[in-house]
Amino acid sequence: MQDFLTDIARGLPATVPFVGPEALERRLGLRFKARIGANESTFGPSPAVIEAMSRAAAESWAYGDPEQYELKAAIAAHHGVEIANVAVGEGVDGLLGLTVQLTIAPGDRVVTSLGAYPTFNYHVAGHGGRLDFVPYADDREDPTALLERAHSVRPKLLYFANPDNPTGSWWNAPAIERLMDGVPAGTLLILDEAYSDLAPADALPPLLPFRDNVLRFRTFSKAYGMAGVRVGYVLGPAALIAEFDKVRNHFGVSRMAQAGAIAALADQAYLQTTIGRIVAARETLSDIARRNGLTPLPSATNFVAIDCGRDGDFARLILQGVLERGIFIRMPGVAPLDRMIRVTVGTDEELALFENALAGALENAREKAA
Amino acid sequence: MQDFLTDIARGLPATVPFVGPEALERRLGLRFKARIGANESTFGPSPAVIEAMSRAAAESWAYGDPEQYELKAAIAAHHGVEIANVAVGEGVDGLLGLTVQLTIAPGDRVVTSLGAYPTFNYHVAGHGGRLDFVPYADDREDPTALLERAHSVRPKLLYFANPDNPTGSWWNAPAIERLMDGVPAGTLLILDEAYSDLAPADALPPLLPFRDNVLRFRTFSKAYGMAGVRVGYVLGPAALIAEFDKVRNHFGVSRMAQAGAIAALADQAYLQTTIGRIVAARETLSDIARRNGLTPLPSATNFVAIDCGRDGDFARLILQGVLERGIFIRMPGVAPLDRMIRVTVGTDEELALFENALAGALENAREKAA
Repeated sequence: MQDFLTDIARGLPATVPFVGPEALERRLGLRFKARIGANESTFGPSPAVIEAMSRAAAESWAYGDPEQYELKAAIAAHHGVEIANVAVGEGVDGLLGLTVQLTIAPGDRVVTSLGAYPTFNYHVAGHGGRLDFVPYADDREDPTALLERAHSVRPKLLYFANPDNPTGSWWNAPAIERLMDGVPAGTLLILDEAYSDLAPADALPPLLPFRDNVLRFRTFSKAYGMAGVRVGYVLGPAALIAEFDKVRNHFGVSRMAQAGAIAALADQAYLQTTIGRIVAARETLSDIARRNGLTPLPSATNFVAIDCGRDGDFARLILQGVLERGIFIRMPGVAPLDRMIRVTVGTDEELALFENALAGALENAREKAA
Repeated sequence: MQDFLTDIARGLPATVPFVGPEALERRLGLRFKARIGANESTFGPSPAVIEAMSRAAAESWAYGDPEQYELKAAIAAHHGVEIANVAVGEGVDGLLGLTVQLTIAPGDRVVTSLGAYPTFNYHVAGHGGRLDFVPYADDREDPTALLERAHSVRPKLLYFANPDNPTGSWWNAPAIERLMDGVPAGTLLILDEAYSDLAPADALPPLLPFRDNVLRFRTFSKAYGMAGVRVGYVLGPAALIAEFDKVRNHFGVSRMAQAGAIAALADQAYLQTTIGRIVAARETLSDIARRNGLTPLPSATNFVAIDCGRDGDFARLILQGVLERGIFIRMPGVAPLDRMIRVTVGTDEELALFENALAGALENAREKAA
């Protein structure tokens, strides 16, 4: 069997970046009462999106436009850029995979933060890249240390998420611009802005003019509430954006996904309402953490990382207790971030269910750890 | 810009496997009256599929199950195999890309037929593979010559479509089994069975026992009428199927796609009705060809390749004439297959529109060629 595999494939682990809540339900033998662990938006997409996708369902005998012309035009208009600056794919995950395929030959170096987005690392490994990790500093990515490392190892790619997952932290535009300015020649900056719609306005540097060495990734999965639809996009200089056409799955973005994303962009009022609900729910969630003696981190996303105040084992006990009480949440996998649990915002009812589960799990964990 | 690209990416052409009908409409400045060129099913999916996808649209704030457990269980039950023998992806195209990623290192050899599925070749090029082409014989893939070439160049992959696109031809199970038996050690046989639901029963070798060196690709895009949904699967030995988990986009198959495919499998009565309609429409389409002095090839698919009787320039004139008359069809890109046009079956009304356009296009082409 192994005969057919490349050396790279032969060396890949069987692990996957994330275990889905459905798989956890099958393992634990329960149905989650609240699904607030995957940074999905339980507030859902705009009703106009659901209607557009239902309409497109009936037309789904036909392939979606492989050029995604109308969707790219809508994205370009939304951001005030040209169509040639936009590539669309099967979520940011899919686009990260293509970016790595385009840039990473076996042995090429890649720099990221220790504990940052695992799916990016997964794609780098899948193409034989060598990952270099820079620790978080004060629970934020460390742009200065990342740049220092980049100048030392001269990676093909430097990954930076703003706002960040799993901490929820962010940097302001001047810091991001210093990062962009400081990237060494030959290094492409992967700026993952999946949570940009939820960030303070001053966290995002202007898109224009595009820089030759920066790609900015956006998604309909978070604030737009369309995680299950699978559509993300990348903004950048036309010459680099054109490269995606050479490797992408041209029919990969479904007809329903294209119709839904177009409808989502057209309903900015709904987006603004949702953002308001998310911001309010972030406060509610932070209050819950504090009421239970834990420390919520500031967040510019749709989740809150909650510092449980002890080590990874303690946080894992709490995670397990919350899961077993029927509430789906997650936690960072790597120390020192693994002293936190990560909870996605939700409705008041969902957050109340979480608080109840958290109280029980905490009591249990404190007893065991005592 | 080019600084960031791998040598492979730098060498890739800007061309894409297929230009979509929407792009042709934009170029020609018209709206197609019939869309019968991309081997989609204008008969559409089962009403149960549309209903399931519409229902899933409202739940699309949540990622689809990354393990695709229920869908894989339904596929496994449908074929009488184990879940471990099934991998699901974003259409056969997406799965072919992953297969190439898993198996092809730069410079590795791949054997296919000259004029066979271009998207497979596209993925091979995208990963730096070296393609070797074996001519069709009598407008069918040539298993004997393919095996000879495989034994001579010892490729990592040997591609064979049964039934074939773009000719519509097929081989019977004993011929396919001889092909399987004859594949050299170290070569994985990519058996593309996208059109298998439309083939005569005796064209398909049994699935069991799975062979260590064969992967069989199936799709919901053709007979099931779900091209725009993007869901295909691959059947094979568990050890090889497990490899897909190491490189796939885990959340890439959308929630709507999973729900739709499950509903499609559950409505086999609809599938059988559709197959009946497709078989009848194949006859209607062949009659149209004959009435216009052209030669339809036998087909085990949802399209008919029509031999226009002269060279590629003549067929291209006809293609262009049909397109300009508002009917979307396609043609093979490579000689000698490019003396054909390729027309997907459709409703009686769509085929009547095609006949009308064909007659005009033919008259024009015969005048120009005279």
